[in-house]
Amino acid sequence: MKPNFSLRLRVFNLNYWGIPYLSKHRAERLTRLGDFLNMESFDLALLQEVWSEYDFQYLKQKLSPTYPAAHYFRSGIIGSGLCVFSKHPIQELTQHVYTLNGYPYMIHHGDWFCGKAVGLLVLHLNGLVVNAYVTHLHAEYSRQRDIYLAHRVAQAWELAHFIHHTSKKADVVLLCGDLNMHPKDLGCRLLKEWTGLCDAYLEAQDFQGAEDGCTMVPGNCYVSQQDLELFPCGIRIDYVLYKAVSGLCISCKTFKTTTGHDPNHGGPLSDHEALMATLCVRHSPPQQDPSPTSGPGEKSPLTGVLREAWSELGQGMAQARWWATFASYVIGLGLLLLALLCALAAREGAKEVAILLWTPNVGLVLGAGVVYLFHIQEAKGLCRAQAELQHVLGQAKEAQEPDQEREAAPLQGLREGEGLKEQ
Amino acid sequence: MKPNFSLRLRVFNLNYWGIPYLSKHRAERLTRLGDFLNMESFDLALLQEVWSEYDFQYLKQKLSPTYPAAHYFRSGIIGSGLCVFSKHPIQELTQHVYTLNGYPYMIHHGDWFCGKAVGLLVLHLNGLVVNAYVTHLHAEYSRQRDIYLAHRVAQAWELAHFIHHTSKKADVVLLCGDLNMHPKDLGCRLLKEWTGLCDAYLEAQDFQGAEDGCTMVPGNCYVSQQDLELFPCGIRIDYVLYKAVSGLCISCKTFKTTTGHDPNHGGPLSDHEALMATLCVRHSPPQQDPSPTSGPGEKSPLTGVLREAWSELGQGMAQARWWATFASYVIGLGLLLLALLCALAAREGAKEVAILLWTPNVGLVLGAGVVYLFHIQEAKGLCRAQAELQHVLGQAKEAQEPDQEREAAPLQGLREGEGLKEQ
Repeated sequence: MKPNFSLRLRVFNLNYWGIPYLSKHRAERLTRLGDFLNMESFDLALLQEVWSEYDFQYLKQKLSPTYPAAHYFRSGIIGSGLCVFSKHPIQELTQHVYTLNGYPYMIHHGDWFCGKAVGLLVLHLNGLVVNAYVTHLHAEYSRQRDIYLAHRVAQAWELAHFIHHTSKKADVVLLCGDLNMHPKDLGCRLLKEWTGLCDAYLEAQDFQGAEDGCTMVPGNCYVSQQDLELFPCGIRIDYVLYKAVSGLCISCKTFKTTTGHDPNHGGPLSDHEALMATLCVRHSPPQQDPSPTSGPGEKSPLTGVLREAWSELGQGMAQARWWATFASYVIGLGLLLLALLCALAAREGAKEVAILLWTPNVGLVLGAGVVYLFHIQEAKGLCRAQAELQHVLGQAKEAQEPDQEREAAPLQGLREGEGLKEQ
Repeated sequence: MKPNFSLRLRVFNLNYWGIPYLSKHRAERLTRLGDFLNMESFDLALLQEVWSEYDFQYLKQKLSPTYPAAHYFRSGIIGSGLCVFSKHPIQELTQHVYTLNGYPYMIHHGDWFCGKAVGLLVLHLNGLVVNAYVTHLHAEYSRQRDIYLAHRVAQAWELAHFIHHTSKKADVVLLCGDLNMHPKDLGCRLLKEWTGLCDAYLEAQDFQGAEDGCTMVPGNCYVSQQDLELFPCGIRIDYVLYKAVSGLCISCKTFKTTTGHDPNHGGPLSDHEALMATLCVRHSPPQQDPSPTSGPGEKSPLTGVLREAWSELGQGMAQARWWATFASYVIGLGLLLLALLCALAAREGAKEVAILLWTPNVGLVLGAGVVYLFHIQEAKGLCRAQAELQHVLGQAKEAQEPDQEREAAPLQGLREGEGLKEQ
């Protein structure tokens, strides 16, 4: 590594709101987005909600002179909606599809059909390994009664875990996307605490954009004012997060958001605001590592948030089991009705009614069977995330015990210095 | 890292065949397995097909004095069947569930319901980071007409990719499990070529066990002779694979398999044979790295196998699209019939028949809808794997081009030495 090198990374992130036939002015916004990206020539442009692969192909072709590398992350039935355009060659890429992502019978919400995921691309820039992640978590349709909270927390945990396990040799980690979580939400805190990622909006030396860095603002003509009823100034749910390994210093020089219209003061590019960050990485003498990824549980905020997440997942699990039990009762009742209908069919008078009701009843039993299996799988997914959290909490407890011993050491006049060195 | 240290790792792997109510002598085999593992005190015991969590809990309790750390990998509806028991503390753990894993309507095969996965545990042993992976891929029900081939190849690719991305800081990588592939099968070659993992059976300095290292042998009373019709001596589908980073030398001192009965000459522990390997890791001066993971495409066998996999996935994709198209025709036909039935219901004579046929027809349309969505998702999953392979092949091509330039250089009297240094 060159001691006096520096890396400047200009990043663009946008939830593009590209639902075919439903999103307003999609084609026109796509053209303007392409023009803007070409004009600005970012190092990386990361997009969410590019639901149509035709839109991606259009952008890929249009942007190819400026961004020779591009990738579309396919998953689920509709697709993850994630794609990336890079000025630099993509060395490696992979993706992880979240285990839990809503319910298939909530068709009007549609998240389940997308196969929400996190995409990873590895870039080699100025001798540094940069791991860039792009993601989109489950939407929040009601803040007061959020039936997807446990799923989103599980997704945040999977995301944090995926970053943790795949970025061990990365010098710089960058995460962009629509997390569908406010900055103080449980999943957001869990993600930041466990990965040690910094929030570009909070760290930026120069910020220009919407009030409080909001990424869905009332001034945007595509935003339903009903959605912002509780937050009249807007909400911040899209993020640029980053960190660097010890020995490197990363800072956010500038951070911009659009403010309800496109950067050239035309109509908005999407119902979300675009984020633009300039990150600088330079060599710095190794200091005390502020990242909690070096080992779990040294810090109590992490332990606290892990416990909170554990408990939230537990509530989700109880809910999932309740639904599975309910479905199993419906199956039992349906089977009982089927037997009754068979008996009725034998009698002359009720034959027709019995035959008529037989097929919908079979449908009911089969439907309840599918619901049962789905919620069993949901409970297993939540239990898996809980077990992983439990393991980390166990590690934290073990790590704290020697800490406590060390804290007690000075009182006993024991080798405090050595103890601290071992940390 | 200590230059003169050495690490000896004793590993046990078994597909335990633990299907509740179906697998013969399950409880008795479980008791004997527990006794054997306690007696042998391996460093790691990795099991597949532990379908019942009660069986895992029984083993966990029984083995806790010898193996204080244990984990059960939950996924899908039934579970992945994977679990691990470790003599050493597990530092970290995670899992990845394969995107494609058979068809839900193939209920008699059941793989889809399991949520087949790969589990990862990170151990710190003698100052070394050991990444141990345990997995179980989709079963092969017919070798002549294997409808799951594309799925298994996609799983092998995901497995290789997962290992590649999560083991970048590991000193030693260990993969155990039932791959459901013969050594020369495409998926197996893809996995080995892309990860650089060595086969313990082939590398072992001292081998004892079944002929040709087979892990399903005709001498095992639980093995159906019909399944081995094409391979009368048995098949090798369970593996212990390993590698170490440059600067470390890893070797397989001993490799044993059971031979149709348990190691104490009782009845077999399972329908698969158990594998027992002793691996030795020691410091060695860095040599030319034989692992292809350092960068794709330096070697042509890797490129060849990548191309073969790409083409196999393409065939799977064509098949998936065919089924999606077929289902869409059925949907169209069903909707036409529904309209016809509505018209018939208006007539007096055919009213009853029309009403009677209406519900099964709705069922047909809904069923075909589910089949359509499933195969669309299957095609997307295969397309995703193909795109990843395509990216690696693109990298390989780019890497080969400078190689070709270098090869041409001596003829032109150009700086060959420098070119090679740059490699």
